[in-house]
Amino acid sequence: MHPVNPNITRTFAPPVMEARRWLQGVDFPPDRPLINVSQAAPVEPPPDGLRRAIAEAALERPEAHLYGPVLGNTELREAVAAEFSGAYGGAVRPEQVAITQGCNQAFCAAISTLAGAGDEIILPTPWYFNHKMWLDMQGVVTRPLVCEEDMLPDPDRAAKLITPRSRAIVLVTPNNPSGAEYPAELVAAFFELAQRHGLALILDETYRDFDSRTGPPHDLLTRPDWDETVIQLYSFSKAYRLTGHRVGAMIASQARMAEIEKFLDTVAISTSQLGQIGALWGMRNLRGWLAGERDEILARRAASVEAISGLPAWRLKSAGAYFAWIEHPFDISSADLAPRMVAEIGVLALPGTMFVPGTDSSGARHLRIAFANVNRVGIAELAERLDNFVA
Amino acid sequence: MHPVNPNITRTFAPPVMEARRWLQGVDFPPDRPLINVSQAAPVEPPPDGLRRAIAEAALERPEAHLYGPVLGNTELREAVAAEFSGAYGGAVRPEQVAITQGCNQAFCAAISTLAGAGDEIILPTPWYFNHKMWLDMQGVVTRPLVCEEDMLPDPDRAAKLITPRSRAIVLVTPNNPSGAEYPAELVAAFFELAQRHGLALILDETYRDFDSRTGPPHDLLTRPDWDETVIQLYSFSKAYRLTGHRVGAMIASQARMAEIEKFLDTVAISTSQLGQIGALWGMRNLRGWLAGERDEILARRAASVEAISGLPAWRLKSAGAYFAWIEHPFDISSADLAPRMVAEIGVLALPGTMFVPGTDSSGARHLRIAFANVNRVGIAELAERLDNFVA
Repeated sequence: MHPVNPNITRTFAPPVMEARRWLQGVDFPPDRPLINVSQAAPVEPPPDGLRRAIAEAALERPEAHLYGPVLGNTELREAVAAEFSGAYGGAVRPEQVAITQGCNQAFCAAISTLAGAGDEIILPTPWYFNHKMWLDMQGVVTRPLVCEEDMLPDPDRAAKLITPRSRAIVLVTPNNPSGAEYPAELVAAFFELAQRHGLALILDETYRDFDSRTGPPHDLLTRPDWDETVIQLYSFSKAYRLTGHRVGAMIASQARMAEIEKFLDTVAISTSQLGQIGALWGMRNLRGWLAGERDEILARRAASVEAISGLPAWRLKSAGAYFAWIEHPFDISSADLAPRMVAEIGVLALPGTMFVPGTDSSGARHLRIAFANVNRVGIAELAERLDNFVA
Repeated sequence: MHPVNPNITRTFAPPVMEARRWLQGVDFPPDRPLINVSQAAPVEPPPDGLRRAIAEAALERPEAHLYGPVLGNTELREAVAAEFSGAYGGAVRPEQVAITQGCNQAFCAAISTLAGAGDEIILPTPWYFNHKMWLDMQGVVTRPLVCEEDMLPDPDRAAKLITPRSRAIVLVTPNNPSGAEYPAELVAAFFELAQRHGLALILDETYRDFDSRTGPPHDLLTRPDWDETVIQLYSFSKAYRLTGHRVGAMIASQARMAEIEKFLDTVAISTSQLGQIGALWGMRNLRGWLAGERDEILARRAASVEAISGLPAWRLKSAGAYFAWIEHPFDISSADLAPRMVAEIGVLALPGTMFVPGTDSSGARHLRIAFANVNRVGIAELAERLDNFVA
């Protein structure tokens, strides 16, 4: 095959697809089925009402099959603006909202308006791998910001990474992969750091609906000129189980939206109409249902924390949203351990090596556990299998 | 707003959105309604059967709401492989097919596997503007290949543009914006040129279903090692009126698919499940209906050719698929003429300046007429308005 862009060959293969390949040829006996804690995605479809809303639109609304506006349907942009204004105590206008084909695409769009090849982005580690992959593909330099023992990034350490080529700092909260919920004061400290240096602060809040805290998770949207600095990202996929429809959102200044529009026009043209219709229906009708979903995830989190904390050899580093970040007790790399766990104890989890640079030895010692799809019985069983595992 | 990537500010705003703004504040009297020949998109929804298939999937198939494989659903990849193998007399395997969120995204993915900032792509002009925008955003250098008077690109002229940084030649056939159908021998000559220089040949066949010719439009897929050179792109949007669902496809080597998978995982994760279900249903059930659609488009093309050729002052340069490329008789730039046409004769067409570099004066003399959405009465009316227009 010729020619190839070295920026894309240099980055790694999709981790979730790679992990799925470890399942090939492995038999899971009926009394010890696979416990899959690898992917952060709902496994059930959305509630009946939402499915009916989508089906009715497909049958009755011609525009559900045709191009929409590049930046998203007006009603959905208005709903997102209202939701974020209300929840964060700020004033987000619909013109400051874009709808994207999923939240990954929102990140790609944001970066594309900020940084070109050779520019630098500060990315806390462990990172969300698709973020790293996009930066690699773009020839953008990732400056890893190693999280502290509590899995929180330190603004002072971040400050030391800033150079004339720096363009943005990325925070994911609640975090993927660690689950850590970043305190409002910490987010504010990063905002001030970014503002002081003329950088953007990208806040990926894909998992905000499962934050254990009540009230706004930060106060940035209440600050004057917040949109000179903040780019906030959101996903409808987790809250409303719409992963197969690809709908995300981003909030940024109207000036930046003109640049975002170029990116989306070129990469997407517009976001799936049925997905947007589903997302809007969800926002309008599933608030109570979503509160119940959150309660269930928080209960699974509590069960995971209790179960894993009780294991003498393993160590829970952090947990939140869909994830726990755990340290294993063996003298081998997680990259080798994870496929062995599939074969030997029927547990599929992603190794920490997928979330850090090759030069960072912490990846070898950790695993990400996406507990959200495992009920309390399954979590107890998972803990037991880990406890009995000898690698 | 700070910071910004100069690559994205440097490229132009989405032309279709800009043209839509010319309509603001303009009244169109009932006896002279707007004739909109600006966008290349169906304005009617898909046939009932397809809409029902999508609605039923939304109601009855849980997986229609969940993530699918990054490179697309197996059944759809198989159907595309079978269709292209049959229609082009080659042997395309499902592993050589990827499904994308529309054909624009297929182009972006293809380029991302080929070229980084500073690399060069040869793009015939007039170009499809989203192609140019993506190259700009990526910092990839566009080498414009000016089409000849017959609106066909010349391989010898292309050869002179090749440098050590060249990575690919892009052909769109039937062409957007000119409508020109590239002869098989011409496509073959470009293939041989690309092969000889180790470049990729990207063939965008978004409009293949409306090609006036019967039989395969080129023989490239029958050649040994075609997939070392060819990347073929396709869209389901036009054939099955699925623009609002965002489904496209690409064909390339399996080795390149591993790189494409990285791009799609990061930008898309997967393509809309309902869109893929609709596309597959269309391929399986709408072959006869699509033949009728093609007949109608070809009839509109014939009517457009006849009507515009009959205008003494205007000149038809080429026509095909959804488009005619015409030369206007006035001593002003099409960039100024197009908004005036909206206000003065109620015709919205895109100016040639949107399809060429600013340094190419041919853009100022031409307009793109997307006649596909105008019936024969409307085409006659369009011609009459052009004929009576004094700018």
